[in-house]
Amino acid sequence: MTVIGLGPMGRALAAAFLAAGHPTTVWNRTADKARELRGRGAAWADGPLAALRASEVTVVCVVDADAVGAVLDRALAEAEGGRLPATTLVNLTSDGPERARALAARARKLGLDHLDGSIMTPAAAIGTEATRILYSGPAGLFDRHRGTLAALGGTALHLGADPGRAASFDVALLNLFWTSVTGLMHSFAYAARQGVPAGELAPHAEQMARLVADLLPGLAADIDAGRFSGAESSALTSVAASLDHIVHALQEAGVPSAFTSEARELVNAAVSAGHGEDSPVRLADFLGREPLGAQGRG
Amino acid sequence: MTVIGLGPMGRALAAAFLAAGHPTTVWNRTADKARELRGRGAAWADGPLAALRASEVTVVCVVDADAVGAVLDRALAEAEGGRLPATTLVNLTSDGPERARALAARARKLGLDHLDGSIMTPAAAIGTEATRILYSGPAGLFDRHRGTLAALGGTALHLGADPGRAASFDVALLNLFWTSVTGLMHSFAYAARQGVPAGELAPHAEQMARLVADLLPGLAADIDAGRFSGAESSALTSVAASLDHIVHALQEAGVPSAFTSEARELVNAAVSAGHGEDSPVRLADFLGREPLGAQGRG
Repeated sequence: MTVIGLGPMGRALAAAFLAAGHPTTVWNRTADKARELRGRGAAWADGPLAALRASEVTVVCVVDADAVGAVLDRALAEAEGGRLPATTLVNLTSDGPERARALAARARKLGLDHLDGSIMTPAAAIGTEATRILYSGPAGLFDRHRGTLAALGGTALHLGADPGRAASFDVALLNLFWTSVTGLMHSFAYAARQGVPAGELAPHAEQMARLVADLLPGLAADIDAGRFSGAESSALTSVAASLDHIVHALQEAGVPSAFTSEARELVNAAVSAGHGEDSPVRLADFLGREPLGAQGRG
Repeated sequence: MTVIGLGPMGRALAAAFLAAGHPTTVWNRTADKARELRGRGAAWADGPLAALRASEVTVVCVVDADAVGAVLDRALAEAEGGRLPATTLVNLTSDGPERARALAARARKLGLDHLDGSIMTPAAAIGTEATRILYSGPAGLFDRHRGTLAALGGTALHLGADPGRAASFDVALLNLFWTSVTGLMHSFAYAARQGVPAGELAPHAEQMARLVADLLPGLAADIDAGRFSGAESSALTSVAASLDHIVHALQEAGVPSAFTSEARELVNAAVSAGHGEDSPVRLADFLGREPLGAQGRG
């Protein structure tokens, strides 16, 4: 097993392969990141070409798709016009689906097998039951290597042959995670301004987050069925009024409200477009079909 | 029991009191909203003064605090200079804490007892185990009426004597709920543009929402303890890079990105202020102490 890229996530991946007993070779642009792994038995490759040559499977986890490209460029330069070794590239670098597809095409041209994967768990969880990694690319390739990749722990799911599919899920899920966390941080800031410690708000906020999780399958079913008519109490006009009241309360408390204001602007735009009586799931449809210009900045 | 305000929530409240066997009087600015409740045995009051006179406890659930004030104005006009009946006003109208406090002060002047409450569940859940209502105001008053209010179902919690406290929780929790739902709708819209049906994304999105819930107690403890140092993998510089990548992916897919961009601007502002190595909980502190102007619009 080879691991290229030894940031916090790459180091966690290499450590998990070592812990599972796989002979593991590592390479990173700066060698000092490998020190601890070498102490645990990892072999050091002198460059990307040697790293690719060392194993049947090479996991790459670097900052973005451009950095993966740079690794391949360097391996090709080291090969001095020769071919790259016929390894399987498992790209666990987080980037968008277009770039994942472009990388898959380039790997194919270079004679490499290629799987794309998105890691949905923090580095600290790698190697435990909590790990979740979504893969896309040729199903046969996934089946061939899933036993080895199982060393990373938890759940490995194959989403389909389109090499961009895992990256699409990655973008959608990380968007949900970071916008939820951002909303939560505003709520904690507002509570603090009102003299409410985070620990007192937390159990109620936790219930809210679980309510979102509980509602989610029903919301998704409504979106896929195009069912946008809502109960009077959760019609978008009522959501707009609620967001108006929240934005004013944040402003009165001196907490920045630009983030929540954007949610309000979106709901207002949907109401102005004639969707005031619809349920909030109308927003997914509205966001997916309106031209960018109609909703301003971004 | 009296219920003033017969929107979807007010009707659900009155129906729950009737279902629990309480003689219930109702009033609404437009009488037609009372028709179904009258069919189930509710008495109709001719105006706010008659409504307040009819019961020991009057629940008010109207559009905002201004509308509660208008109900009191009208009752005073009907009293023609006389005093209002000594009822207990339970204000379940959703509005900010400043207005809840102002209303409590006005009720006290008018000789009315006053409790403020925030309903954290949809109208459809009223009267079931799922109901959650947060109250604030005099503890003795809450204890005296909690038996009657139990007709609304589920959990009734008393948060403290400050009449604005329930409204503070309301703002913080609804902010979390609606920003999370807004983020989710962007994720569904992006997935749709990538050919991924909502139902395929949903189980993964549900896991993300549950992850936020699972992380929440730890995040709150860090905020209250002022522990802002983070693991390298979730440092704000790394979050900024992740949000950058998400915003670009949304833009490439033609999905409006202004909402997610605001999250990125906030993280960038915190990084620029020197918090790049800190964990995301630094954002709650940063939002709570930065002057509004420093973070632009709002």
